[in-house]
Amino acid sequence: MELHAVILAGGRGERFWPLSRSDSPKQMLRLVGEETLLGATLRRVSGRVLRANTLVVIGADLRSATERLGLPLPAAQFLWEPVGRNTAAAIGAAVERIGAAPGRALLVLPSDHWIPNDAAFWRAVDAGLMLLASGEPVVTFGLRPLYPETGYGYIERGEPLSAAPGAFRARRFHEKPDAKRAQAYVDSGCCLWNSGIFLFDAAAMAGLLRLHLPEMAPTLDRLRADLAAGEETEAWARYFGAATAVSIDHGVMEKAGRVAVLEAGFEWSDLGTWTSLGDRLSADADGNRIRGEVMALDSSDCVLYSGDGGLLAVLGVHDLIVVRVGDATLVCPRERAQEVRRLVQEGKVDARLGRFF
Amino acid sequence: MELHAVILAGGRGERFWPLSRSDSPKQMLRLVGEETLLGATLRRVSGRVLRANTLVVIGADLRSATERLGLPLPAAQFLWEPVGRNTAAAIGAAVERIGAAPGRALLVLPSDHWIPNDAAFWRAVDAGLMLLASGEPVVTFGLRPLYPETGYGYIERGEPLSAAPGAFRARRFHEKPDAKRAQAYVDSGCCLWNSGIFLFDAAAMAGLLRLHLPEMAPTLDRLRADLAAGEETEAWARYFGAATAVSIDHGVMEKAGRVAVLEAGFEWSDLGTWTSLGDRLSADADGNRIRGEVMALDSSDCVLYSGDGGLLAVLGVHDLIVVRVGDATLVCPRERAQEVRRLVQEGKVDARLGRFF
Repeated sequence: MELHAVILAGGRGERFWPLSRSDSPKQMLRLVGEETLLGATLRRVSGRVLRANTLVVIGADLRSATERLGLPLPAAQFLWEPVGRNTAAAIGAAVERIGAAPGRALLVLPSDHWIPNDAAFWRAVDAGLMLLASGEPVVTFGLRPLYPETGYGYIERGEPLSAAPGAFRARRFHEKPDAKRAQAYVDSGCCLWNSGIFLFDAAAMAGLLRLHLPEMAPTLDRLRADLAAGEETEAWARYFGAATAVSIDHGVMEKAGRVAVLEAGFEWSDLGTWTSLGDRLSADADGNRIRGEVMALDSSDCVLYSGDGGLLAVLGVHDLIVVRVGDATLVCPRERAQEVRRLVQEGKVDARLGRFF
Repeated sequence: MELHAVILAGGRGERFWPLSRSDSPKQMLRLVGEETLLGATLRRVSGRVLRANTLVVIGADLRSATERLGLPLPAAQFLWEPVGRNTAAAIGAAVERIGAAPGRALLVLPSDHWIPNDAAFWRAVDAGLMLLASGEPVVTFGLRPLYPETGYGYIERGEPLSAAPGAFRARRFHEKPDAKRAQAYVDSGCCLWNSGIFLFDAAAMAGLLRLHLPEMAPTLDRLRADLAAGEETEAWARYFGAATAVSIDHGVMEKAGRVAVLEAGFEWSDLGTWTSLGDRLSADADGNRIRGEVMALDSSDCVLYSGDGGLLAVLGVHDLIVVRVGDATLVCPRERAQEVRRLVQEGKVDARLGRFF
């Protein structure tokens, strides 16, 4: 099978404000180690996927910021979204751009996740390719849940599939649950964290998009015709202008009858919040997770981040997230890290915040 | 009586880190309103004291920072301490510089206090001058305590003095108490907050310094001779090099038999900490006291300060002090504001903080 990688880099990572800004979204940050998350994702696929078969789907407004990163990928391998339309539209665009030939496998990866072990990751993908070869049209990757995370979606697995080890029929997709439901999913023993990574046959996905999102069918057909006619710039403007904004999970996966889920063995985090980033940093004797110039007195179990050589000093605080970088500082309790995007979103209608995000 | 003002500006205000830095100590900050605290103190005395009779005692290392303030006071009216030796030495220097003539009244004021009503302040000073005229050598100014503050010293008053309204013999000086003792002082009804402001007859103080700090007597005598000989720069280096480092309260006031205390009617704060500064700022509906660009969601009873146009955003926090300015941010609970100096002092032996204070 011909393997292609599609890296979805359309997100903003508003929960990482104030480090994430409009011109440096989460996937362009060096949150763990010295690489940007997008750079690490590209490196992860580069060992197995040709550059010519790697496509990054990203917002056109991030073009100059992306160019400044100097990623080792030719300009032709970027698909610039004139406007963001969620993941179903992005995947539809990628399928048409790459070409919906049967036997062509597309591996879709978010650009801003953390996966420390490339070999373990590729073992899972290889199992997924075995499933595609056995005739499965779509393979999702699930992780055995380590705790009742409310920030992830869950995939309920059904009967095992014999074509690959750890493979199951996906019985149901569950959106991000509340705490009680998350605990029930974990206790059930048959729910996996939805990694947001998946693999599919290009021709099969082209059909599924048209079947389950019928209002998208003429838009996708028009895109195919425009691309065949060589009118690429206009094609994207027209397509994204008309495309339905819906996630691939909600728009296709949940409706498709035949989806497989692989219980993947790799370590993974979506690095969704400052708290989950903190979990990736080693804790000091007081349970503080620190990056940058930080002085902590009588303080414990905090995530403390100080950027660009400045100093953060805390005294007598516990279970807090404190982030200072450049002209902005954020303070919130660890358990409310999900709500940081509220600051950004409510800030958007607040002139004082306009220049910050 | 010839009235002189001596403004003591030797402090650092380490509790106001990160706003206070080595080259911009507390008295040079615009903590309340648009004036620096030192500038406001100068303005307060300027209505009643001639410039030629106003002396600012301040560290020589702050000379260029002081000049940048552009204060309306001739250069000759600054006494530059080559090294800080606490308040007894500073007052001894001021007395010798001004001249220890009997009938010459010296009003000593810290440079970094908050007194909003100049007229009320001067009513108290006028009462103090009446006491001096009646033969009292030293008059301290006390405030009726509003709550059991542990950050202030207390003056226990004795029998009333008839020479001025609200005047009493000072029976005893109490250092900063613990919480239990502070409550007892307040309950006693006869203890006043020690404002650190006092008034004395120059000749009397020259005698008291020599009497109660006998090891200072030759140093003071030598200073007097050096100044008479016109060797001013050498005089200060020699004097401060040899002077005992002790506070005027501990070195003289507590030992002197005849000290008066005036129960003053002016509003006053020593602005000792971020918490007491917060008390001077008006509270919003959630009890937050805010200066600068601040966004507060689901947060209450905080002191939130953002300097130089940057943004501070807090979410879900309570009773915290958060200060961000330039390259540094501080976070601590309101009730631990006194301990901010620990960050600076422990930071001094920590290379990471060296450049900050």
